[in-house]
Amino acid sequence: MTMNPMGKYAPIADIPLQNRKWPSQKITKAPVWCSVDLRDGNQALVNPMGIETKLAFFDLLVKLGFKEIEVGFPAASDTEYEFIRRLIDENRIPEDVTIQVLCQAREKLVKKTIECLKGAPRAIFHIYNSTSPAQRKYTFGKSKEEIKQIAIDGVKCIKSCISEEDRKRIRLEYSPESFSMTEIDYAVEICEAVKAEWGCSASEKIIFNLPTTVECSTPNVYADQIEYFCTHISDRDSVIVSTHCHNDRGTGVASCELGLLAGADRVEGCLFGNGERTGNLDIVNVALNMFSQGVDPELDFHEIEKVAELYTEYTGMNVNPRTPYAGELVFTAFSGSHQDAIRKGMAARAKMDRNALWDVPYLLIDPHDIGRQYEGIIRINSQSGKGGAAYILEQDYGLTLPKAMHPALGDVIKHAADKAQRELKPAEIYDLFVKQWLEAKGNLEIMDLAETHLDAKQNSQSEATTLCRAVVGWKGKQFAIGEKGNGPLDAFASALSKTPAPKFSITAFHEHSIGTGNDTSAVAYVQITCENGSQYWGAGKSTSVGRAGIDAVVSAINQIS
Amino acid sequence: MTMNPMGKYAPIADIPLQNRKWPSQKITKAPVWCSVDLRDGNQALVNPMGIETKLAFFDLLVKLGFKEIEVGFPAASDTEYEFIRRLIDENRIPEDVTIQVLCQAREKLVKKTIECLKGAPRAIFHIYNSTSPAQRKYTFGKSKEEIKQIAIDGVKCIKSCISEEDRKRIRLEYSPESFSMTEIDYAVEICEAVKAEWGCSASEKIIFNLPTTVECSTPNVYADQIEYFCTHISDRDSVIVSTHCHNDRGTGVASCELGLLAGADRVEGCLFGNGERTGNLDIVNVALNMFSQGVDPELDFHEIEKVAELYTEYTGMNVNPRTPYAGELVFTAFSGSHQDAIRKGMAARAKMDRNALWDVPYLLIDPHDIGRQYEGIIRINSQSGKGGAAYILEQDYGLTLPKAMHPALGDVIKHAADKAQRELKPAEIYDLFVKQWLEAKGNLEIMDLAETHLDAKQNSQSEATTLCRAVVGWKGKQFAIGEKGNGPLDAFASALSKTPAPKFSITAFHEHSIGTGNDTSAVAYVQITCENGSQYWGAGKSTSVGRAGIDAVVSAINQIS
Repeated sequence: MTMNPMGKYAPIADIPLQNRKWPSQKITKAPVWCSVDLRDGNQALVNPMGIETKLAFFDLLVKLGFKEIEVGFPAASDTEYEFIRRLIDENRIPEDVTIQVLCQAREKLVKKTIECLKGAPRAIFHIYNSTSPAQRKYTFGKSKEEIKQIAIDGVKCIKSCISEEDRKRIRLEYSPESFSMTEIDYAVEICEAVKAEWGCSASEKIIFNLPTTVECSTPNVYADQIEYFCTHISDRDSVIVSTHCHNDRGTGVASCELGLLAGADRVEGCLFGNGERTGNLDIVNVALNMFSQGVDPELDFHEIEKVAELYTEYTGMNVNPRTPYAGELVFTAFSGSHQDAIRKGMAARAKMDRNALWDVPYLLIDPHDIGRQYEGIIRINSQSGKGGAAYILEQDYGLTLPKAMHPALGDVIKHAADKAQRELKPAEIYDLFVKQWLEAKGNLEIMDLAETHLDAKQNSQSEATTLCRAVVGWKGKQFAIGEKGNGPLDAFASALSKTPAPKFSITAFHEHSIGTGNDTSAVAYVQITCENGSQYWGAGKSTSVGRAGIDAVVSAINQIS
Repeated sequence: MTMNPMGKYAPIADIPLQNRKWPSQKITKAPVWCSVDLRDGNQALVNPMGIETKLAFFDLLVKLGFKEIEVGFPAASDTEYEFIRRLIDENRIPEDVTIQVLCQAREKLVKKTIECLKGAPRAIFHIYNSTSPAQRKYTFGKSKEEIKQIAIDGVKCIKSCISEEDRKRIRLEYSPESFSMTEIDYAVEICEAVKAEWGCSASEKIIFNLPTTVECSTPNVYADQIEYFCTHISDRDSVIVSTHCHNDRGTGVASCELGLLAGADRVEGCLFGNGERTGNLDIVNVALNMFSQGVDPELDFHEIEKVAELYTEYTGMNVNPRTPYAGELVFTAFSGSHQDAIRKGMAARAKMDRNALWDVPYLLIDPHDIGRQYEGIIRINSQSGKGGAAYILEQDYGLTLPKAMHPALGDVIKHAADKAQRELKPAEIYDLFVKQWLEAKGNLEIMDLAETHLDAKQNSQSEATTLCRAVVGWKGKQFAIGEKGNGPLDAFASALSKTPAPKFSITAFHEHSIGTGNDTSAVAYVQITCENGSQYWGAGKSTSVGRAGIDAVVSAINQIS
């Protein structure tokens, strides 16, 4: 079956834009941000916020750096009226912050709103009416002229309700709601009428907010709409063009960004995309997208997890684990090749200046910049490769396995994860390493061991520096052995040749210290190659440097099946 | 504090695209869809799927209409190898479906992969290597030429491992991984080299998959990259250009869509955006975006909830409540004005042809088209207006309140929701309606009632058709009253004037039947206007049409405080 309802759906009409400029533009500075969390966001909550929660949320928004905050529709809700009064009466609005109130342009409502704003040093009075063909037809049953008149009458009503003094502290925002579905020339026409009625200047700008009330086209079309509006509205210098994107097609962030390329000055949205249906634009996402390209977003998300926590506390909504920047999983890599590349990129980075250009593979930004951690980056499941487990052992347990040993580790981890059919925790990976290598049981065991450092006169062979004497068990039988060598390891390996253990040579040796002070040990990694060419890794840990290597040899021999 | 790490981040270089065409294009047909749920998606799960689950997921993908499905990396995972063998051995791959396998181009791996594909009628062999500057530098430590040679050697290796017969059923896909961060001319150069080595024709096309492995710019830049690639690769007719978007900047859907505008033929992605970090492209979203504009997506999501349910069962991942189309909240409106517009749009639509152009406000598509319901659309909280509660009463309880009564209902609901500080359930709304109106208690009660229909000869007043006799209580005192009127209601109202109850006139009356058969009742709604001008609504329900109206009058009088 295919899905083709034949004529039930159609794209909106083309935007008659000449000499389109936006695709060649760049975002080079932060827009004016306006949070609508306390209105649009709150409205869409299953359990709307109470006043105390709203006050806390307002304080958070201020702290994050928002300079314009829509705080409610005071004429429609007593709770919102009271909340706004508390903001004003308790002097909670910093000098550089402007509150914004939504209102329908009806006399009774306007008067109540103005009353609510008494004493507010600055405010944006936001009026709207819906302008799309469907809204004109179904909701209002009115013509284009009549709908335009609603907007004009609204402005007249506000003008008649406020004093000359009020006018100095109150700015106007007008939204042709359902802008994205409105004929573009008509949207400009209605805004021209509003502008003519209210008046504006370069120092007293009017805000035109152009919402994708319902997102109805690919984001390039919205950019065309914005560019058309910006290039056709008169007195552009006296106008602030604002975006207000929703996310019905999953492209709210893109619409906002392309809208900014197209000339918009201002962005309305909510933290983490809270809002009706698919949500309002996620301001965190757009702001950090700017950050990721070297543009200061002028919002402070350097503790993103804290912000997400408070958001969840205030709204009861969760941040999805795959939400850009803030989601639990976004600085995690499961893929082996991703893990390997991240490990290499981070290792290279550790030697660079802290603010060197960020280019670690698979990580869009440095998680530290938003208060997140590297530690959580790598998880191990049966799909992840050798690099991941080695990274965990290095980061969490200080064990730096030689690269050539990674495949052997990878096999062990993969086998265990396949068997468990789930991700392995770092502690499980460490336990597997310990069991497989540090505590490897097999045919060979050391029952007694003594090393003697030989000084020159005791030494008949020129290179030999160490005498190793040991009692070892091989398949349950004891052997007392002793041999000289150019170090404890060499001497032990030579001594072993006197037992029935397979003949081998040591083909790789690595050692490093682990821990500090009295707790310092040595960890050694040894690769042996048997006469038949097969190779095995072993590892040993001891407070004695020499013993660690010998234990690693035993460990390697015990891998032979 | 602001976030400005000065030089740590920068946008990628400009794409030197001349005469950009994509912003004027439209999406007019479905691309070739390739699901990577069983590879990229599975890889990113905390608990990867087992074989049985993968088989079920594969069947789902086939049922949804996918013709190309990436099924695994058989040379890297025994589980995936075994899964693919079961697909082949159990004849689970329909004739029009091609499986795709991922592989690094190393001889041992290629051989194992070819072995795994034995008996598969068709397959896409997908090889990749990473090509961005950071990957060249950190992960491989190789030059551009050397990285290109990896790709060429990979193709050579595949050619050397497969027979002429194999060549007929196996197509090649090459991904310059980290394409979005790779110099665009170099990406073309490396693909040209791969193409020259493998060969292709209009009937045996080669697939070039161009991933935003990490999304690193606004989606218009990706579109520029795709258009550049499409216009610079030679033998364009012999090449399938494929997108593979991730979502690091929250614009994966937009990048894919603009990529299609820019000329891409094919889309790789996962259901509901499963995948590493922020996820792979959400194919459901892009497909239904096409559907919403009248383009047949050639994928079948007419039961989206069932698909989401199976997805959650198979992957253990949830679909976010605000995910476009599929999320729990996306066909819900909380706002009163939204609810009102939706109600009007739906009412108008009920009178239209089922496939008339969809333009109901606030709903991008008809929820029925993807198996979702209107019923869940409206919830009631203290923010929602009068329309919402009325809609619930109509949809769920068959009560069609007159529009003029909606504000009275709205006040009651809003008060209760404000008090409860949470959303009200439909049953709670109904209970509030019953308590407030149908069972309104107050000063007036009917203790006994009798109506007599008057025939012409009994009737001295020309209009009077009914005699009403009643015993009523007013503030606890009984009154026996009787009066004629031009109907039961009129007669009762006249009779009441003989009690101390306030004088009123009936200024609105509505009645409708409810229920069917023996269970049919009448519901009446009455508005009274008192002498002081104040107005009250009442409602009554009875198996008797006349009694329902009288009860409604009593209900209205009992609203007077």
